[in-house]
Amino acid sequence: MSLPDVLLEPLVRAALAEDLGRAGDITTQACVPAAALARAAFVGRTPGVIAGLDLARIAFQLVDPALRFTPLLADGSRVAPGQTIATIEGPARGVLTGERVALNFMGHLSGVATVTRGIVDAIAHTRCRLACTRKTTPGLRALEKYAVRCGGGINHRFGLDDAILIKDNHIALAGGIAPALRRAREAAGHLVKIEIEVDSLAQLEEVLAIGADAVLLDNMNPDQLRAAVRLVAGRAITEASGRITPETAPAMAESGVDMISAGWITHSAPVLDIGLDI
Amino acid sequence: MSLPDVLLEPLVRAALAEDLGRAGDITTQACVPAAALARAAFVGRTPGVIAGLDLARIAFQLVDPALRFTPLLADGSRVAPGQTIATIEGPARGVLTGERVALNFMGHLSGVATVTRGIVDAIAHTRCRLACTRKTTPGLRALEKYAVRCGGGINHRFGLDDAILIKDNHIALAGGIAPALRRAREAAGHLVKIEIEVDSLAQLEEVLAIGADAVLLDNMNPDQLRAAVRLVAGRAITEASGRITPETAPAMAESGVDMISAGWITHSAPVLDIGLDI
Amino acid sequence: MSLPDVLLEPLVRAALAEDLGRAGDITTQACVPAAALARAAFVGRTPGVIAGLDLARIAFQLVDPALRFTPLLADGSRVAPGQTIATIEGPARGVLTGERVALNFMGHLSGVATVTRGIVDAIAHTRCRLACTRKTTPGLRALEKYAVRCGGGINHRFGLDDAILIKDNHIALAGGIAPALRRAREAAGHLVKIEIEVDSLAQLEEVLAIGADAVLLDNMNPDQLRAAVRLVAGRAITEASGRITPETAPAMAESGVDMISAGWITHSAPVLDIGLDI
Amino acid sequence: MSLPDVLLEPLVRAALAEDLGRAGDITTQACVPAAALARAAFVGRTPGVIAGLDLARIAFQLVDPALRFTPLLADGSRVAPGQTIATIEGPARGVLTGERVALNFMGHLSGVATVTRGIVDAIAHTRCRLACTRKTTPGLRALEKYAVRCGGGINHRFGLDDAILIKDNHIALAGGIAPALRRAREAAGHLVKIEIEVDSLAQLEEVLAIGADAVLLDNMNPDQLRAAVRLVAGRAITEASGRITPETAPAMAESGVDMISAGWITHSAPVLDIGLDI
Amino acid sequence: MSLPDVLLEPLVRAALAEDLGRAGDITTQACVPAAALARAAFVGRTPGVIAGLDLARIAFQLVDPALRFTPLLADGSRVAPGQTIATIEGPARGVLTGERVALNFMGHLSGVATVTRGIVDAIAHTRCRLACTRKTTPGLRALEKYAVRCGGGINHRFGLDDAILIKDNHIALAGGIAPALRRAREAAGHLVKIEIEVDSLAQLEEVLAIGADAVLLDNMNPDQLRAAVRLVAGRAITEASGRITPETAPAMAESGVDMISAGWITHSAPVLDIGLDI
Amino acid sequence: MSLPDVLLEPLVRAALAEDLGRAGDITTQACVPAAALARAAFVGRTPGVIAGLDLARIAFQLVDPALRFTPLLADGSRVAPGQTIATIEGPARGVLTGERVALNFMGHLSGVATVTRGIVDAIAHTRCRLACTRKTTPGLRALEKYAVRCGGGINHRFGLDDAILIKDNHIALAGGIAPALRRAREAAGHLVKIEIEVDSLAQLEEVLAIGADAVLLDNMNPDQLRAAVRLVAGRAITEASGRITPETAPAMAESGVDMISAGWITHSAPVLDIGLDI
Repeated sequence: MSLPDVLLEPLVRAALAEDLGRAGDITTQACVPAAALARAAFVGRTPGVIAGLDLARIAFQLVDPALRFTPLLADGSRVAPGQTIATIEGPARGVLTGERVALNFMGHLSGVATVTRGIVDAIAHTRCRLACTRKTTPGLRALEKYAVRCGGGINHRFGLDDAILIKDNHIALAGGIAPALRRAREAAGHLVKIEIEVDSLAQLEEVLAIGADAVLLDNMNPDQLRAAVRLVAGRAITEASGRITPETAPAMAESGVDMISAGWITHSAPVLDIGLDI
Repeated sequence: MSLPDVLLEPLVRAALAEDLGRAGDITTQACVPAAALARAAFVGRTPGVIAGLDLARIAFQLVDPALRFTPLLADGSRVAPGQTIATIEGPARGVLTGERVALNFMGHLSGVATVTRGIVDAIAHTRCRLACTRKTTPGLRALEKYAVRCGGGINHRFGLDDAILIKDNHIALAGGIAPALRRAREAAGHLVKIEIEVDSLAQLEEVLAIGADAVLLDNMNPDQLRAAVRLVAGRAITEASGRITPETAPAMAESGVDMISAGWITHSAPVLDIGLDI
Repeated sequence: MSLPDVLLEPLVRAALAEDLGRAGDITTQACVPAAALARAAFVGRTPGVIAGLDLARIAFQLVDPALRFTPLLADGSRVAPGQTIATIEGPARGVLTGERVALNFMGHLSGVATVTRGIVDAIAHTRCRLACTRKTTPGLRALEKYAVRCGGGINHRFGLDDAILIKDNHIALAGGIAPALRRAREAAGHLVKIEIEVDSLAQLEEVLAIGADAVLLDNMNPDQLRAAVRLVAGRAITEASGRITPETAPAMAESGVDMISAGWITHSAPVLDIGLDI
Repeated sequence: MSLPDVLLEPLVRAALAEDLGRAGDITTQACVPAAALARAAFVGRTPGVIAGLDLARIAFQLVDPALRFTPLLADGSRVAPGQTIATIEGPARGVLTGERVALNFMGHLSGVATVTRGIVDAIAHTRCRLACTRKTTPGLRALEKYAVRCGGGINHRFGLDDAILIKDNHIALAGGIAPALRRAREAAGHLVKIEIEVDSLAQLEEVLAIGADAVLLDNMNPDQLRAAVRLVAGRAITEASGRITPETAPAMAESGVDMISAGWITHSAPVLDIGLDI
Repeated sequence: MSLPDVLLEPLVRAALAEDLGRAGDITTQACVPAAALARAAFVGRTPGVIAGLDLARIAFQLVDPALRFTPLLADGSRVAPGQTIATIEGPARGVLTGERVALNFMGHLSGVATVTRGIVDAIAHTRCRLACTRKTTPGLRALEKYAVRCGGGINHRFGLDDAILIKDNHIALAGGIAPALRRAREAAGHLVKIEIEVDSLAQLEEVLAIGADAVLLDNMNPDQLRAAVRLVAGRAITEASGRITPETAPAMAESGVDMISAGWITHSAPVLDIGLDI
Repeated sequence: MSLPDVLLEPLVRAALAEDLGRAGDITTQACVPAAALARAAFVGRTPGVIAGLDLARIAFQLVDPALRFTPLLADGSRVAPGQTIATIEGPARGVLTGERVALNFMGHLSGVATVTRGIVDAIAHTRCRLACTRKTTPGLRALEKYAVRCGGGINHRFGLDDAILIKDNHIALAGGIAPALRRAREAAGHLVKIEIEVDSLAQLEEVLAIGADAVLLDNMNPDQLRAAVRLVAGRAITEASGRITPETAPAMAESGVDMISAGWITHSAPVLDIGLDI
């Protein structure tokens, strides 16, 4: 489930460059003797799900190859308050210099994993799954999508290029559902799925008559969703979107849709509070 | 107050590359005629403060130079629900292809500006200011710091290199407050300020005896802060940190500290809900 | 069908940097007066299909914004020997300096489009389509995939990440077809299709019993393909691969498979011979 | 003869990023257990000359440092069908994930080396050498030039900056052979050679009267070449170009020219068929 | 005091790419057997101060990980003619290929450290310190600032963003000293110092009435500086600039200013003559 | 003679990023009204030769496209004290923000051009030319080589890859002059020249017996050089190196060598003093 280091390393280098600036960690260089050693533990402060351990490891490796980062949990694990997530030991300067970048990555991704898990748990009694969207933090999409997987969610499109998702504006500019679907089918490779957004059962019927891999049922309430699922009758994947929270999710999931999707789990998840105790 | 395009452009290019992937916007290419024109408005859905208009402008410019982006508000302005923030017009394909990247930047930065403004307003009756920290989203620090300024806040350090901030671990590894401060002063250039974290009035007295530009009063309650401010008596800038929310901020600010700082305004601000109406 | 400039420009910059080296075009600088103007035509020398006009345009723009590049054909058009594809006019130095990079891009991509079209035409009497693979020239995958589309082909996966393709080695390491397909289904997002390679009808039956979006019928002859198509009976997309040439393609396509795929149309296509006549 | 890793690594990173996309190798992650080990052999399928082993090694190193890549042949060696070129062993996931990038580099460069060797062998009874040109695949020039050396060829200019090559258009725009050569000589550093293209013996005489390091005899037949070589009489290096194939090369080489050059050995060489047997 | 490798490595990679070009070290590849080993010593030819050992180490590491670089001195040490600074041993090809890049970095930075130390020594009898400016070689600012520290100097601003320095043009465009200082104070974060340039005692009085962290006394002679220091009376840091040389520095430093600054120590320092003896 | 913008732009972007840091020009943003306009002149303070105008132009373009940069001199021109080199006008903020980067490039390159011109003038009565070396500032080689051309000099190798230069260490490791030259000739392409360093007339005779394009006469005095030139008798280009200054150059040039080369004109040239008068 993890991402290869070769994709992660450039992001960690950029984050370190951003933090080290043009003179490096001047506080640590001034105050901490070069020979000092330290051992520190990443500890959860609030309950959550961990994601981003590889990024923390790479950050410390790049700061000082003499540092040893030891994860005690794996990405996707739940962490309890006070529980140690990983340890870092070696030259004290490196521990202090790499700390913030490591925490910024882990906190953000664990935050995404944690809110994802919250909804996934809330709908665990159904067969409905939770997906993220393209509403991600610029530059971090691959990481946030990964964190969603750590939280038990699934990924929607990674970009504009890996699936066709026909929205209301596309339909309007294409001249209707039929021409939009027809053009999409002509253009798509055989491994590219086609999903289309509908606002009403009437639109849905029009789509089903032509065929699509998935339908995005936008801003429908559970009753409407139930009717839509009945209408689809297994002929397409059904996705519901709009105002998904841990509170609203169960009712929507119980409508029988295959999946619900939410942008806020990636773009508005608060960080998971993780501390570094030296 | 704005950031130069030459710094913003690489970030927008990276975000577009991330979204366009290896085949570009296949939905729009398939469904929308090349000759179709569109005019759309960025509209606020909830009240907030705008930040990131330049990034939206650059995104559309890079997608299609024929697009015309017209801001109706400036970064730092408040927006009301339903109010138009900016318009974009030109080839419809470009509008649809650039929309998500533009919204991802604007939503995130406006979210940061909005929560910042919330606290700034809450403490406006005092002379205390609000600062952000180095707890930022990896890769986006310059943008988030800028968004804090748009929200009326001020910036703390941009990185490890532009100011000295001596924390508890530095003190411990340096062998105490006195050696830490002495070493820091020797190493610092004349334009580099020195701030030091203290947990108690005893530590504060030790710092004041030696001298520092600023003191970080960590996790103190308003009464402790008041005592600390009295003790400092103008000899250093006073900064309070720890659990700052719109609710807790007024009492802390009324203690007389020069500034309060909060990490969550950058790393955990929910996006501001902005829509694009075509 | 075209790729956005923002994706193409970095590739053209790299190609120009590679050709200009550390001193630029020393021949042209020495021999050609700065004020000299030139007008030149890109002319086809052999019949083919054009791809890559945008790259040529960008190359000249980057060399000298005063140059005017005017395409007379569009990507995907057929060109006859002697036919003018595009013209370039302006400062003679820029024309000569940009010529080779422009031709290297256009020649290579038009070569890919041309061999693609050759097979596409050969199977035009069937409903079978031609797809490319991940056997592409390192660094140029997006361009070569685009050129395949210009030649009338369709694209298979763009990378390891946008579809699941279970090959013989995956099956062996997963412990058989059933566990491989089951694991793939659990891991895949709802827009990710699953294709699996089979070598025999026995394997194919096993796959169909479980279900997959597509089956890759590897190295089967037309008779075997026909049997496989019959067996599949529309329950999955059928793809045939192995030694596809303009000569072998018709018989394979006539077997009824949905698509045939070939690596050599991207990695071994000879360039289309295009000249620049000044 | 090999290129330093520091030049190769960025190209391999780019190729891996292109293939791994935004989610990595989802098939292998899903289907292959993390603990599985594999041992595989790169085996030649058709006779040829190997080039690019370093790129394969770097690809696997970057995918997983635990992989061990062992070359059994060296770049420049001939390979027979069925012969093992190199082995790779270690975590099975890494073997499968890195396979395609390694093969794409090796296949392409070995293809260039193979066609080069074909012509070099065909003219081995003469003292004539084979050179490549600037007609290379964008972004891969250094690699393709290296592959030409692996095949026994020599390199012409690496770019527009490392030698002066005056072509017909330069002559026309400079106002003739004499002013072109004079300007070139004034501009050139002492280590920069000057070569000039001629179409006829008359032009050749004009060049020889002034002097040049090399003459490019464009599109001459063997008889014309023989006359040109006689005329030059050792006063310049003689290069013949135009329609060089294994069939035409011997007659051209026997004319006595110092070298023949061909663009297609870099831009149109089909890949060498290499397989990975697990 | 050292800079982290993660900041240095990209600069060394760029320098190696610049020197290795598109074919690598063709002389060494041709002339030196692959198995040859070498041991060489970096030896000072003239007295000076060393800076840049880490860059030399990284250069050799990147050229060939089998090379062993052993520093005998540390950055900031003085070196005497004939003294060995560091040794490099391992494959001879790597030693010769990496030599020039290593020397170019070390020579340049040691040159900066040496001229810095010359002035620092000349003013060592005062409490005045020497600072560098933003007049640095493009792309090498962080390194040159580091070399200044190696020579005993201190750093002024690293860029336009980490301190406010109000110069004559800013004053004129702001409408005077008072509005300039007022605006600066409003905009500055609490850790950003404000310095302002003054040409006369009258301007200085105006500044002191408002307050600033530092004053830049531009082009004043020692008598004027003495008067200025008297006037400031400890209320601001005093910096003198303009025509600082080892000869003029003592008189300026004896005026009582806190620091003197010079651009030429970074942008015009001749390299320190260091040789590599094999 | 100029370098194409496409090569210069990345260097200017890097220099601007280095100077603008993470917050941009905070002084100018704070103090200078957005609407203020300015007109400024680049004026020579000391006599010299100009180089780098294109870099200044690009710097201002990137800071603000509304700025208009007008060169009054061309690169390679002499400038007298007080003479205007170029003007810049437009938004005052942009003028002040771009000023330092523009001056850092122009000052450095004009410094290189000026010291080059000093020696070139000193040897103008001979037919000897002045060349630079690979002893350049890391990252700026192409620019410094260009500045040498602006000063009337010629360029030696641009890197390790574009010519063969056999030095004493290569000779020793190859087993002598003869094997070194033989190997070099085998490896070299037809446009690659071979130069070899000799310390004595004995070595020179050995070289001439075998043949080389150029000989580097290392650390010989004028009498020795004269003898060497006599011995060579036109059979190779003769280059003298070692301690070349404006004072020593004439005697060395009068020895009859074709060229003299000096590292310090690139790595130790002081900047030319250029000011920006607003």
